[in-house]
Amino acid sequence: MSEIGVGIVGTGFMARVHAQALAAAERTWSLPVHPRVRAYCGRPDSPVSSLPSWPELADAQPLEGWRALLEDPAIDLCYVCTPNASHAEICVRALEAGKHVFCEKPLAHRLTDSSRMAARAAAAPALQAAVGFNYRRVPAIDLARAMIAAGDIGAPRHICGGYLQDWGLDRSALGIWRADPAQAGYGALSDIGSHLIDLAQHLMGSTIVAVAGTGAVGSTLAAPGGSGDRSECTSAYGGAAPVAYDDAALLVRFDNGASGSLDISRLASGHRNGLHFEVRGCEGSIAFSLERMNELELSVTRARGETWRRFYVTERDHPWQGRWPPGHPLSWEHTFANQALDLLTAIATDDTFHPTFADGAQVDGVIEAAARAIESGGWQAAARGQALINNRQTV
Amino acid sequence: MSEIGVGIVGTGFMARVHAQALAAAERTWSLPVHPRVRAYCGRPDSPVSSLPSWPELADAQPLEGWRALLEDPAIDLCYVCTPNASHAEICVRALEAGKHVFCEKPLAHRLTDSSRMAARAAAAPALQAAVGFNYRRVPAIDLARAMIAAGDIGAPRHICGGYLQDWGLDRSALGIWRADPAQAGYGALSDIGSHLIDLAQHLMGSTIVAVAGTGAVGSTLAAPGGSGDRSECTSAYGGAAPVAYDDAALLVRFDNGASGSLDISRLASGHRNGLHFEVRGCEGSIAFSLERMNELELSVTRARGETWRRFYVTERDHPWQGRWPPGHPLSWEHTFANQALDLLTAIATDDTFHPTFADGAQVDGVIEAAARAIESGGWQAAARGQALINNRQTV
Amino acid sequence: MSEIGVGIVGTGFMARVHAQALAAAERTWSLPVHPRVRAYCGRPDSPVSSLPSWPELADAQPLEGWRALLEDPAIDLCYVCTPNASHAEICVRALEAGKHVFCEKPLAHRLTDSSRMAARAAAAPALQAAVGFNYRRVPAIDLARAMIAAGDIGAPRHICGGYLQDWGLDRSALGIWRADPAQAGYGALSDIGSHLIDLAQHLMGSTIVAVAGTGAVGSTLAAPGGSGDRSECTSAYGGAAPVAYDDAALLVRFDNGASGSLDISRLASGHRNGLHFEVRGCEGSIAFSLERMNELELSVTRARGETWRRFYVTERDHPWQGRWPPGHPLSWEHTFANQALDLLTAIATDDTFHPTFADGAQVDGVIEAAARAIESGGWQAAARGQALINNRQTV
Amino acid sequence: MSEIGVGIVGTGFMARVHAQALAAAERTWSLPVHPRVRAYCGRPDSPVSSLPSWPELADAQPLEGWRALLEDPAIDLCYVCTPNASHAEICVRALEAGKHVFCEKPLAHRLTDSSRMAARAAAAPALQAAVGFNYRRVPAIDLARAMIAAGDIGAPRHICGGYLQDWGLDRSALGIWRADPAQAGYGALSDIGSHLIDLAQHLMGSTIVAVAGTGAVGSTLAAPGGSGDRSECTSAYGGAAPVAYDDAALLVRFDNGASGSLDISRLASGHRNGLHFEVRGCEGSIAFSLERMNELELSVTRARGETWRRFYVTERDHPWQGRWPPGHPLSWEHTFANQALDLLTAIATDDTFHPTFADGAQVDGVIEAAARAIESGGWQAAARGQALINNRQTV
Repeated sequence: MSEIGVGIVGTGFMARVHAQALAAAERTWSLPVHPRVRAYCGRPDSPVSSLPSWPELADAQPLEGWRALLEDPAIDLCYVCTPNASHAEICVRALEAGKHVFCEKPLAHRLTDSSRMAARAAAAPALQAAVGFNYRRVPAIDLARAMIAAGDIGAPRHICGGYLQDWGLDRSALGIWRADPAQAGYGALSDIGSHLIDLAQHLMGSTIVAVAGTGAVGSTLAAPGGSGDRSECTSAYGGAAPVAYDDAALLVRFDNGASGSLDISRLASGHRNGLHFEVRGCEGSIAFSLERMNELELSVTRARGETWRRFYVTERDHPWQGRWPPGHPLSWEHTFANQALDLLTAIATDDTFHPTFADGAQVDGVIEAAARAIESGGWQAAARGQALINNRQTV
Repeated sequence: MSEIGVGIVGTGFMARVHAQALAAAERTWSLPVHPRVRAYCGRPDSPVSSLPSWPELADAQPLEGWRALLEDPAIDLCYVCTPNASHAEICVRALEAGKHVFCEKPLAHRLTDSSRMAARAAAAPALQAAVGFNYRRVPAIDLARAMIAAGDIGAPRHICGGYLQDWGLDRSALGIWRADPAQAGYGALSDIGSHLIDLAQHLMGSTIVAVAGTGAVGSTLAAPGGSGDRSECTSAYGGAAPVAYDDAALLVRFDNGASGSLDISRLASGHRNGLHFEVRGCEGSIAFSLERMNELELSVTRARGETWRRFYVTERDHPWQGRWPPGHPLSWEHTFANQALDLLTAIATDDTFHPTFADGAQVDGVIEAAARAIESGGWQAAARGQALINNRQTV
Repeated sequence: MSEIGVGIVGTGFMARVHAQALAAAERTWSLPVHPRVRAYCGRPDSPVSSLPSWPELADAQPLEGWRALLEDPAIDLCYVCTPNASHAEICVRALEAGKHVFCEKPLAHRLTDSSRMAARAAAAPALQAAVGFNYRRVPAIDLARAMIAAGDIGAPRHICGGYLQDWGLDRSALGIWRADPAQAGYGALSDIGSHLIDLAQHLMGSTIVAVAGTGAVGSTLAAPGGSGDRSECTSAYGGAAPVAYDDAALLVRFDNGASGSLDISRLASGHRNGLHFEVRGCEGSIAFSLERMNELELSVTRARGETWRRFYVTERDHPWQGRWPPGHPLSWEHTFANQALDLLTAIATDDTFHPTFADGAQVDGVIEAAARAIESGGWQAAARGQALINNRQTV
Repeated sequence: MSEIGVGIVGTGFMARVHAQALAAAERTWSLPVHPRVRAYCGRPDSPVSSLPSWPELADAQPLEGWRALLEDPAIDLCYVCTPNASHAEICVRALEAGKHVFCEKPLAHRLTDSSRMAARAAAAPALQAAVGFNYRRVPAIDLARAMIAAGDIGAPRHICGGYLQDWGLDRSALGIWRADPAQAGYGALSDIGSHLIDLAQHLMGSTIVAVAGTGAVGSTLAAPGGSGDRSECTSAYGGAAPVAYDDAALLVRFDNGASGSLDISRLASGHRNGLHFEVRGCEGSIAFSLERMNELELSVTRARGETWRRFYVTERDHPWQGRWPPGHPLSWEHTFANQALDLLTAIATDDTFHPTFADGAQVDGVIEAAARAIESGGWQAAARGQALINNRQTV
């Protein structure tokens, strides 16, 4: 059995998440290749002495910037967990250096970057170019996908979904990079909207081809005396910066004729991390909420007034189970271990891990269309992406 | 104390509801005027012998058609509970005959009709011209409105709402008039969408000025082998009839700058009669679902991780209470008694009951803009309606 | 068709409820006999001038005390809605006067009274002697009973239920008669515990034969500086009065070998009127909560991790429906109309309405055993009651 | 910084859980001592070649039985994860060998064993003698405990709780050791009842001094044609074995005068792993369910009809946080990492980790009193345990 050297670029919250997920995967399953985190780094100009010394990275070497990390021949797989605007350069260079790459979502800040990343990945088919839409690996969500694909609700016709957070209402949050358009692109639309768009397409089994939308800028709400005046908002974000949406409501049309309503907000009091959806088909519905992430609800029949059947997605034949007996719920953290398992397995078997950079670029295309729709009104076409390929045949 | 003669036009489900509501109001409160249902009728060509003899109408005289009913000088107030396409003629004639009118929602089939009705009502300011958006009289919804108006969640910025039913999935339902575009206008958009649009404006304290939307036609789903092809759908509805939407997802912009996502469907498996909304403001959120219609949830603070506070809206100081001690829930039926109380009180005091025909016509304008948006794409302007006037100062 | 004269003894909250329920039943169904409330009265010494003039009783004659009411030959059916301690005398005299009697629950203050009432009723089999356990007429509860009786969950083995209210925590409530042991017997155990005990037996299809229990006295909690010292409590209730429990937790054993846990409290913050139960059988479970009174949850299989199936109990073939289309929920108030329908039907058809005084006395026997168990410890036998006979064959 | 050698006795599901928890704790926090799993073993007669080779234990040496493991001087801390009947001998010997011991719950099979274990632990105060009531380390439960201790609901007066599972309904489960009285003691009462009893005492801040109960034997339900006849059940479990309860409903009295109802079952269809409680105090209530384990509900006031306030227990100042930003839920697995953190910290600081063997023996005393109460009826006294000492001062 072989070992695979891992390098982690970034020292934020997600960097720790992946370090822990790799260790958890190692402990949980008999992996075909063994991940070993060998190095990590911060911003290019961050001296080694300023890097955090987390227990997760106790065995890894701190390096000064990602270029040093890419030069290390012992690194086979590179995790890119930096602010969105920096993804493109690091990922392209990593692929050029012959590394497998796992990039956090959204793939890039600008669609030109995403496309460049996807093109570079296409040119190196032997390397994994993975993007971190981890919610595909929530067991209940994958069960939903499988039920829909199996026809349990008939042809899916509409998805009503939301990804709602509340931290944008906290003025002290405005200083972080996720609230800075120069680093974070289209705000909530990029940050959490990318997850929702990816999931919507994944569940409906079809890509989004058109978008209409409306949006609000967070800082106008959070700023003292915020009046909703955009100029005030723009200055709150630092002058002429492109606008970052903290609240975006979208209508979407899928390639297969289905439709969707997507509700995205970081200004949604009451929701700490509220991802939810309901998919409606010709013969039933499926509903999910991340706040009860081990449950799935299915409506198929009205016999005797029956409305919903609840599933507790912890059975042995459910996706990514086999660690505990049924009834012991998994949580957010486990989606990353599941993701690591699938990525390492793909590396070992020369299969392609999904979602790929191509998938990530397609989502960025929808985001960009959404931003255009919000700015200019009307329906905006999204580039017709390649057919999504599910790489798991579960349940 | 005086008596008021009531006539009911229509012999469907809603006719019974209003007859019972008047009796319930009479029993429950000390009304300023006493309603007495004196007459009722069916379709113009329905002989008296064919009319149902319901216990609710045991003391009322069956008449042959609404013209006979309007000629009766003992009728002071006329309830119009017929299919939508017939509202305009009956209501206008009733106003011309000097009767107070209560018309079921939506006000009319075509916007030209709604406008004509509103104009006729404006010309007779001494007569009530009421439209039956009964959900305004759900105590929890009125408490939500009052909380929002009082600033409990800061300025309201977005409403995410839905009105979801499932009976359109039942093929046997296709024969009823609510599924017939010639009688029911824009399908679900008119039937239940009108409620949702009225509520959204009522809660946000602002009118909708623009709409984008997407919609689906129900029969293509319900018909055997339905392929989503609209031509098939059209023929299922009987040839060249205007299209009726059974599934409509809208984005809306309010006059005050706020936005909304409205999800309307009669094809939503799992929802028998699922009206719900969440209003998000700069400082909090309010959430409601008709399936738990005596509850209201408010989110205002994140202290110690607090998310939602639940209210059980049955206290003595809550809207329309005073009948039972706290803790004894009211239901759908009671909204009509509450509505009857307010209408009779307005008649007695020469106040104006709201919503009026002007309000109903404004909602029809939004519906028409939504239909245009679905058909032709893009954002469609809705006529800027008059400011909504809340006629209650509760809580 | 004939008319039946009704007299109402009592001017409290429940008197209004029954007056409204009779009117609602009259309006809703084609009744075999028509109820007409002809007279009502308050306490024996309440002059007519002091009686309330409620709209519900506008057509009824106020009388000075129940003796006058019983002397009226136009009264065929007498509703007894007075404090518990007075039930026995009024009901026995009413039966002696040849009236049908409907008595509010619990049947009596002392078991000797209950037995006397049941004996008097047995001696007049042509008269209805009904007791007001209205929750049997919640459609979802009756569906639960029918499902259990049909074997949908296998043999029922355990019921875990509660009836929880919070008003006892409000010191100002201590003055009302329901908190006075001299009038209200065993406090919460009598007041709301009687409902829960009746339901438990009704659902399990078996009578309770033994009880163990523990209890707390409310006033010690509500009183300023309450220390839990019973002597303080006793004096708070007025000296040497028998103790009234505001909090009682019971274990019960049924005649058929099943068991139960019953949790009764008027000191349960968070619960305004929270009646709930879960019945567990060898092959499934059924769960209900009055806070969502139109829903029922059934668990029968664990296939693919399924846990619960939800039913919305408003279908046309559900108990007591036929008033509205499916999806329009009923509420607490409707249980009384359902009850009135069944009582009037039983009178018209010479069937026996259930629950009877015999049923009510049997419940009082369980309450008395529970009070003994709380006072003296150990399991206390309840008199083995007659087999309960369900008078409805629904679903 | 020093390292601590860990040995794991047992190769079942819980052995893996602890191995992973130690690794997760190591990765998550800066631990004062570093755990290193050096050895593990199965049953005394299990040859090394038959032991599983799990990834979690890749670096540990498989040994032939616990005696070999205790002889290893490199082992400082011994996890005992074997069937209940074997706990006593292994733990006593481990303490005698100078090892810290962590024993899975319940502490022992018979109370004599528990007492012996507690006595041995008392004789070695420098060694940790910990028992695995991991639910104390659910952050929301600890917040509940802290809120109660801080007086947020006034004096706690009653706890209504349950621990419900459904696997006992599956006949194929009867073969496992948890269903074998010779190995598992009092069945569900020991297995999951021990958790519930520990939590009840922990939350109420008082020990249980008396118990009444009723119980059912699972196999009579699960066995084909099960008639409820105990003799059949006994033979299903293998002749003259002591009875194992799969369903136990208890009433309890606490030393401080409070009461409780505890509902324990492995035959509860619909509940995979359903631990829940509601604590009621003089001024409020607190409610929790493991199925929504990051949420806590608090009821303190009825202002404007408010009932419950929901908390999402993932804030930075909540117990055991500091790993993720707020809003990212933890799960069942994390309670073991939290437990490991506290145990290792206690070892490093020479504090005493709670719960101790004394606590575990006290719980076993309550279980034994419960079994006596079920068998013989009446209230049974539980030995008055030492005051529980909470070793955390959180929030």
